[in-house]
Amino acid sequence: MAPPQWIIILFVFLFLISYSSAAPSSGIVGNISATEAENLPGMTHITLAGALLHGFKEVEVWVETAAPGVHTPIHRHDCEEVIVVLKGSGTLYLGSHVDDDDDGGGGTRPQEIPFHENSTVRIPPNHAHQAWNTNPHQDLHVIVIISRPPLRLWVYSDWSAPHESAKEMFPTVWDNKFLLKANANPKDDVLHHHRRHEL
Amino acid sequence: MAPPQWIIILFVFLFLISYSSAAPSSGIVGNISATEAENLPGMTHITLAGALLHGFKEVEVWVETAAPGVHTPIHRHDCEEVIVVLKGSGTLYLGSHVDDDDDGGGGTRPQEIPFHENSTVRIPPNHAHQAWNTNPHQDLHVIVIISRPPLRLWVYSDWSAPHESAKEMFPTVWDNKFLLKANANPKDDVLHHHRRHEL
Repeated sequence: MAPPQWIIILFVFLFLISYSSAAPSSGIVGNISATEAENLPGMTHITLAGALLHGFKEVEVWVETAAPGVHTPIHRHDCEEVIVVLKGSGTLYLGSHVDDDDDGGGGTRPQEIPFHENSTVRIPPNHAHQAWNTNPHQDLHVIVIISRPPLRLWVYSDWSAPHESAKEMFPTVWDNKFLLKANANPKDDVLHHHRRHEL
Repeated sequence: MAPPQWIIILFVFLFLISYSSAAPSSGIVGNISATEAENLPGMTHITLAGALLHGFKEVEVWVETAAPGVHTPIHRHDCEEVIVVLKGSGTLYLGSHVDDDDDGGGGTRPQEIPFHENSTVRIPPNHAHQAWNTNPHQDLHVIVIISRPPLRLWVYSDWSAPHESAKEMFPTVWDNKFLLKANANPKDDVLHHHRRHEL
């Protein structure tokens, strides 16, 4: 026996109500614990709020973990960056500004700046730098904030490499994975949006 | 007996060395635990990375706590905002976009969007909203990220107030405290910098 028509109408109505209230909130509030992380060698990355995933244009927020000994490449970028250390400790290697007239990519002998749980690390824009989990006993957990996403960076082969030799990396590994999944073309909208900020 | 001249020279030299290596790192790495919080009624605020304190132009990062029942005013701003919930839970009340042609400041009946520990809350720009610690048993601890600091906001008297009636608040309470301490004039550089982004 088919259900009475009013029951079908009631179900459609309830579905529409639940959908209309759930859809906006699911885009606005995300649950870190229920989000699948990108697994990279020795580290995990989750974009909490991002350009490609959520349409952000001015800020992007990540949570990352790094195993002992894991480090970023030596790199620079023109956007602002802040790292909030939730757990663990490490070292920021900080070189010179891209316009500084020196031999190396940030100077051949970068500053070594230790950071710890509850540290805030404020990276000066356009300075070569490298973050390293130098604690052999503990994973490093951080929240990373950058401006003007998606991130484009310039990577140095080592600290003695001149600034001009740094190689552009765009998009990042995780943004590229997203673009490949979404079958999108990074040469189009994303690149255009990013370059617009540099003019 | 006066100390020999070489001892004085050594001490000056050691002081200069310690100062030159400490000064950059103290500006780059800050310790949240050792930072004095602004105490406001029922809440605390620390600017981890900010426009006035650290010269940031594109992002600002805060850590805040709110006691049970404590809430922001109903407000909107044109910058992007992300809230990462470290501890506790609460409710985001989300109204309409400033350009929406409705009766109230965000609509007379805002959406109620719950958030929890490990939630990321992505606030859509130019929407009236209010964050509220609706958990009667636990303090709320959050990291807040905004773009284009320092923050300027428009405050509504209640949810039925029209968008046009919202009152500009600039600078924020904590930025104003900083400016008063620094004896600076918010009408000059800061306002100028902030308004530049709106053109």
